Amino acid sequence: MTTKQLYNQIQQKKSFLCVGLDVDLTKIPQHLLATEDPIFEFNKAIIDATHDLCVSYKPNTAFYEAYGLKGWQSLEKTINYINEKYPDIFTIADAKRGDIGNTSTMYAKAFLEDLNFDSVTVAPYMGKDSVEPFLAFENKHTILLGLTSNEGAFDFQTQEIDGKPMYQTVLETSKTWKNSENLMYVVGATKAEYFKEIRNIVPDSFLLVPGVGAQGGSLEDVCKFGMNKQVGLLINSSRGIIYASNQTDFAEAARTEALKLQKAMAIILEQN
Amino acid sequence: MTTKQLYNQIQQKKSFLCVGLDVDLTKIPQHLLATEDPIFEFNKAIIDATHDLCVSYKPNTAFYEAYGLKGWQSLEKTINYINEKYPDIFTIADAKRGDIGNTSTMYAKAFLEDLNFDSVTVAPYMGKDSVEPFLAFENKHTILLGLTSNEGAFDFQTQEIDGKPMYQTVLETSKTWKNSENLMYVVGATKAEYFKEIRNIVPDSFLLVPGVGAQGGSLEDVCKFGMNKQVGLLINSSRGIIYASNQTDFAEAARTEALKLQKAMAIILEQN
Repeated sequence: MTTKQLYNQIQQKKSFLCVGLDVDLTKIPQHLLATEDPIFEFNKAIIDATHDLCVSYKPNTAFYEAYGLKGWQSLEKTINYINEKYPDIFTIADAKRGDIGNTSTMYAKAFLEDLNFDSVTVAPYMGKDSVEPFLAFENKHTILLGLTSNEGAFDFQTQEIDGKPMYQTVLETSKTWKNSENLMYVVGATKAEYFKEIRNIVPDSFLLVPGVGAQGGSLEDVCKFGMNKQVGLLINSSRGIIYASNQTDFAEAARTEALKLQKAMAIILEQN
Repeated sequence: MTTKQLYNQIQQKKSFLCVGLDVDLTKIPQHLLATEDPIFEFNKAIIDATHDLCVSYKPNTAFYEAYGLKGWQSLEKTINYINEKYPDIFTIADAKRGDIGNTSTMYAKAFLEDLNFDSVTVAPYMGKDSVEPFLAFENKHTILLGLTSNEGAFDFQTQEIDGKPMYQTVLETSKTWKNSENLMYVVGATKAEYFKEIRNIVPDSFLLVPGVGAQGGSLEDVCKFGMNKQVGLLINSSRGIIYASNQTDFAEAARTEALKLQKAMAIILEQN
């Protein structure tokens, strides 16, 4: 998918919502546990109930790997279901991978080719030759960790290198890499005051923004400082939507929560 | 496994060799492709041929994920085979994971509990709360990326924060984390001149050292600057051993290459 197609979808749906599919078997409605593949059944119901309100789904691979082979099967079924039934949706494998050249290529093929995600999240610590293999895939996107939403972001990401916080060095350096037009960045909503600086460095890139809701980030603040001409934001919500209810009405409850966010986004889009 | 047990094994085998099981179906002997699980058959033969010469095996998860469900099955079978047949071996899931708290716990459970690896490699970019969940597992080890062996290591890891290269800040900071005694570090052999500084910061920790052989690092230089009283080094070799031959004699050829390294290590151990 191209960013142009993503932007078109945002305009059409009046939404830049990404729903995080972080499925924990201890948190989903217990009646689903009797089905053959509870994770997939849960995802399917959530997706069917929210696909017109969001533009992206983001399974975090940790939640699937934690269930071993069965988990990977659920991940495969989930991405295939989205790609077949809702092909306009922008899909993100939240895998935070990264390794040396040849090995990164293996990861890139696994997520962008075999599983056919539109994008994958990647950690920057190992530098250029660990990220460029992901960037080589046409019409696919590499979402580089910039400034994450957690407390630990202050351990290294905000430490200064030559008078600039490290995450800014990461953003600036990444722009010099081959096929850098395929880059997007993770920027946590809990640090809205940083968005202005970030937009100076990467004015045109899409930013994937976790941390609105449960982690305390504000949608309005993020949009105020982070939005660009093509919107340029994908606001992720996971727990706030998918665990809105753990009863048989869970899908409906997820839709209600997604709708709240979509409506707030529609108002912001109208004002901009 | 405790580091004491690992050290005992090193003394017994006169080896601190780690064999990287990075299995690429295009590089293994073609006659194995006719078997039901070529990756596992390959690993099994390599393991049986080298287990007395090395103290550790390290499958890199990228090479298994690249083959989807079937790949994960091969990984499971491989780790189970090692744990059952050679329980003294120190096993490393080279996964380079890392995510926010709760999600890191899912990864930690996947590798340290379900797959029952002795250790897992983790990326430091997201800081304390992304690593501590891995450290909480008793007698398990978290191998943090310090200074990697690739060219991209110079992009961020060697950039200076307050007059010190970033990788040193990572090492120092990580020592303040809860259960930091369960930490080991990845330090590339291609940067032997850095080992002295690193040993000043983490004198007692084990270092996992890739980059000897194919990538150009020298075993002697690494040992000269990196060895401590408990040896404290795991020298990894992947391609140089497992792809020594792609004919039916591949396991024997792997043993020959592993033996060369083991003999060189025995000499170094005797001298120290």
